[in-house]
Amino acid sequence: MSTKIPYKIYLAEDEIPSQWYNVRADMKNKPAPLISPADGHALTIEEMNPIFCEELNKQELDDVTPYFDIPGEVMDFYKMYRPSPLVHAYFLEKALETPAKIYYKFEGNNTSGSHKLNSSIAQAYYAKKQGLKGVTTETGAGQWGTALSMACAYFNLDCKVYMVKVSYEQKPFRREVMRTYGATVTPSPSNTTNVGRKILADHPGTSGSLGCAISEAVETAVSTPGYRYVLGSVLSQVVLHQSIIGLEAKKAMDKYDIKPDIIIGCAGGGSNLGGFAAPFLGEMLRGEADYKVIAVEPASCPSFTRGKYAYDFCDTGMICPLAKMYTLGSQFIPSANHAGGLRFHGISPILAQLYHDGYFEARAVEQTSVFEAATQFARTEGILPAPESSHAIRVAIDEALKCKESGEEKTIVFNLTGTGYFDLYAYQQYNDMTMSDVIPSDEAIEDSLGKLPQ
Amino acid sequence: MSTKIPYKIYLAEDEIPSQWYNVRADMKNKPAPLISPADGHALTIEEMNPIFCEELNKQELDDVTPYFDIPGEVMDFYKMYRPSPLVHAYFLEKALETPAKIYYKFEGNNTSGSHKLNSSIAQAYYAKKQGLKGVTTETGAGQWGTALSMACAYFNLDCKVYMVKVSYEQKPFRREVMRTYGATVTPSPSNTTNVGRKILADHPGTSGSLGCAISEAVETAVSTPGYRYVLGSVLSQVVLHQSIIGLEAKKAMDKYDIKPDIIIGCAGGGSNLGGFAAPFLGEMLRGEADYKVIAVEPASCPSFTRGKYAYDFCDTGMICPLAKMYTLGSQFIPSANHAGGLRFHGISPILAQLYHDGYFEARAVEQTSVFEAATQFARTEGILPAPESSHAIRVAIDEALKCKESGEEKTIVFNLTGTGYFDLYAYQQYNDMTMSDVIPSDEAIEDSLGKLPQ
Repeated sequence: MSTKIPYKIYLAEDEIPSQWYNVRADMKNKPAPLISPADGHALTIEEMNPIFCEELNKQELDDVTPYFDIPGEVMDFYKMYRPSPLVHAYFLEKALETPAKIYYKFEGNNTSGSHKLNSSIAQAYYAKKQGLKGVTTETGAGQWGTALSMACAYFNLDCKVYMVKVSYEQKPFRREVMRTYGATVTPSPSNTTNVGRKILADHPGTSGSLGCAISEAVETAVSTPGYRYVLGSVLSQVVLHQSIIGLEAKKAMDKYDIKPDIIIGCAGGGSNLGGFAAPFLGEMLRGEADYKVIAVEPASCPSFTRGKYAYDFCDTGMICPLAKMYTLGSQFIPSANHAGGLRFHGISPILAQLYHDGYFEARAVEQTSVFEAATQFARTEGILPAPESSHAIRVAIDEALKCKESGEEKTIVFNLTGTGYFDLYAYQQYNDMTMSDVIPSDEAIEDSLGKLPQ
Repeated sequence: MSTKIPYKIYLAEDEIPSQWYNVRADMKNKPAPLISPADGHALTIEEMNPIFCEELNKQELDDVTPYFDIPGEVMDFYKMYRPSPLVHAYFLEKALETPAKIYYKFEGNNTSGSHKLNSSIAQAYYAKKQGLKGVTTETGAGQWGTALSMACAYFNLDCKVYMVKVSYEQKPFRREVMRTYGATVTPSPSNTTNVGRKILADHPGTSGSLGCAISEAVETAVSTPGYRYVLGSVLSQVVLHQSIIGLEAKKAMDKYDIKPDIIIGCAGGGSNLGGFAAPFLGEMLRGEADYKVIAVEPASCPSFTRGKYAYDFCDTGMICPLAKMYTLGSQFIPSANHAGGLRFHGISPILAQLYHDGYFEARAVEQTSVFEAATQFARTEGILPAPESSHAIRVAIDEALKCKESGEEKTIVFNLTGTGYFDLYAYQQYNDMTMSDVIPSDEAIEDSLGKLPQ
């Protein structure tokens, strides 16, 4: 097939994949199960049901079913903002003078501004189907909270968001988008929960943390009839829902006979990279193809490149189940100078196992070089990228420049997860040249890893 | 043709119109020319060339050529973010329980967040082609300044933006987007111009106005070698460039045999409505079809519905040429409580003539009802609309509800010009129920109209 490749490849609406792909089904070494913090036994669905939605728990525990049908009502919602375009980064290639071909899947083309909507609408659907009244969650930078509030508005579900206090105060506009979609947004720690009141008493004036917000959201979910807790990354169900990104991207590439050599995604909790790379990793796992898959993480929170593959708590409060992952330790807090998300101390157990088994590599990049790439991308490709997504841009540019050196015509594809409209304070720091790089010392990481549960 | 209509209609890339349509060519009564403030003679191209770009002046004065080829480099840029989707507002229809069919052309699907890019890239192209070093402009809410800075980055042109000081301070993120695209952003009034210094001396502590920013931008353009002044609305060249919206929308509708009954756009300076409605107005002017075209303006700045059709200054400083338009008087300032743009006291001379000749109607709407419509739209259609665009949404909903009453299956199409990411302060006022309506008194308008030039 040698059809002329358009600048933006849009699949037709009826070409949107109708099933999610569960990469675990093709993994010989399955990801390690979530275990109880009390005695280390693998959690059962009965133990998970009081906290999470039932159908989502089934998805969380199922590592053998390769495909899950996407419910019709979720498909309807997907049609509001999907298919997302696969863009040929023609203008960036020209600016770099590289023989490489660069493509990106643009997942920020919706009001939530990120790929998070792909999972929030699925999670809200199953909550509604279960007859729940509402859901609770935490949000830091705000992408997940926004996506969840949009999904809840669609299904007329209550949405209670605990937003890290410093973020609540510094990002009032993120808060207002959530309120516009009908969500209740509470700065965390708050006096609406026991754990919040305790933290406020122990640390008056604290500006909060994601770990604390998780604890408040979980407490509210389990103590309020008709509510459950939902989460926007790390869990295997989220990687499953995000596979829509990779399936669409692969379909678009197949349509125009584009064969990627290098596949790049940023990695925080791992859901966008996991979903984007899933069908390609599936081919690798089945021995059908080989790709170079690269996870890009911030040098200020380097779980893959400097963490340890071990069981650890998912939350700073150490009340949630343990997951086996590459982790910097649940007490690791990235420097306050680190801009944007990708602050989680661990990584999705699926990605952790695949990385451990050598299916992809990881790179840590420094934030000034990330914003340099972001600015170059904005000026050439006309899209203002989110700081998180710009980690992938950085490495895509690096790989394209290597091709310029070597003269190789490699095909590079990356996932552009979101837009940076709510991150302009960080852009301002970069524009003003007051942004600095923040790399944790070996001692700090050793110290944090020393506190891993035994 | 009875193909199933998708939720979002995307034309193929090679279906993007390759020419702009000049509606003036089909007007029997041509819009009145711009005239000199000194003696009222129609301005010649020689008089306009020191201020504006030469090729743009040719377009400004040409009321007979029906089509202008879009230059190849502008087409390349258009392909970054065009074609824009024509969306079937299926979810809004369902929420309203209306038999009406509602469609919208979504022009906010790019980093500038609005349709302004359609003209800024054309204006930057002609400036570059003329060998200029840079351009100057003013911006209030910031959409135009953002769009121009993106276009200038693409052509490597200097871009000097005078931003109304109150906006510069209240919208630091708009400013940062422009800086990220390499523009110089100066709060106006500033001490970089004679007019700015004079205003600062006369009114210490003033927070600025669009009129003042225009004067500073014009002074800088004419006094700096290699610079010209560019403008984002009102002028006929801008309506010409914005015809890409209507041409694309019509092509998409023709493809699926969609026949609009009602065509709606918001009206500030008039460029989005003029461009969107142009091909439909052309059919009306040539006697080929009939449509109900509605201009929607804020009740707080009601140029069409309460203004006078007369020659007036385009700027508050009364130094620019006079245009014949529906005007509230160049000294009219909308209440500070009015949220968002659509604050211009007059309207595009093209639209003014067409309105005068009965080719469309106008409605003024109050802002709390506009934000009510915006919120309903955001929750059902998943897009957070700009306050300006939400004026069109308000009337589209009103018309759809009339159809619900009457049982008529009318087809309504409106232009969704932009997104509201930088307008969340206004959304917050609405969410907090502290937003009020602001309708100028008859006395205030009479007083302002009493100062029209004779």
